[in-house]
Amino acid sequence: MATSKATAQWDGTLKAGKGVMRPAHAGEVGFTLGSRFEGKAGSNPEEMLGAALAGCFSMALSLALEQAGTAPTSIHTSADVHMTQDNGAFLIDTIDLVTEVEAPGLDPRKLEEIGKETKKRCPVGRALGGVGSINLTTKLK
Amino acid sequence: MATSKATAQWDGTLKAGKGVMRPAHAGEVGFTLGSRFEGKAGSNPEEMLGAALAGCFSMALSLALEQAGTAPTSIHTSADVHMTQDNGAFLIDTIDLVTEVEAPGLDPRKLEEIGKETKKRCPVGRALGGVGSINLTTKLK
Repeated sequence: MATSKATAQWDGTLKAGKGVMRPAHAGEVGFTLGSRFEGKAGSNPEEMLGAALAGCFSMALSLALEQAGTAPTSIHTSADVHMTQDNGAFLIDTIDLVTEVEAPGLDPRKLEEIGKETKKRCPVGRALGGVGSINLTTKLK
Repeated sequence: MATSKATAQWDGTLKAGKGVMRPAHAGEVGFTLGSRFEGKAGSNPEEMLGAALAGCFSMALSLALEQAGTAPTSIHTSADVHMTQDNGAFLIDTIDLVTEVEAPGLDPRKLEEIGKETKKRCPVGRALGGVGSINLTTKLK
């Protein structure tokens, strides 16, 4: 139905090389081994994945809250993507999502309930079935 | 071990609102309902997800090829992320990955074999366990 496009380029070896990610309608995003694992300047694939999930979740939550009769004015979501090692291979074991919502008439319990449902239903959340756990914290602003 | 951060903001309702995704070390990436589903200007979460997968796969492939004795000089990977509807809910059912590799001494069969293994092992590929299928095409440049 809908197809979205992106590319990436990696030049050279893992340690000496460098890469760039290019979502079709966004800027270039540079990354290296150092920016991924050693806190050096630059982005990395996990940041992009976190942005995808935070964006997808926020958009889906706006619809779900509107359908519940509490249309939001602002939704802010952070995604912390945690990577660990398992038998020498890296994997994303946990993602912590924290969302802060401003929506007239909404109470915290209802937000929590709708948030949980949205996390399961939004396309990127569904796609991430290989992540150990996606933890959601909801807050009213 | 390593934590990567991103945020997203959505203002307003699904149809009238607009959003922005912010990987911590990359620029702002705007999106709307129109840029996600109607081909209008702007990015969307699926593009970001595709960039994350293409970037992760390309970096992991550089290591795997080096370890096989055929260090690459260039790896270019595209990701087409296909979304469909299932009982009214959207889901990402297929991602087509196409990678073009320049690596002295590498033959097409070996590239295909290493590529398949890399797709399964790279952290973002592993995380995407909820995607129906991730199809890989490998080409020598």
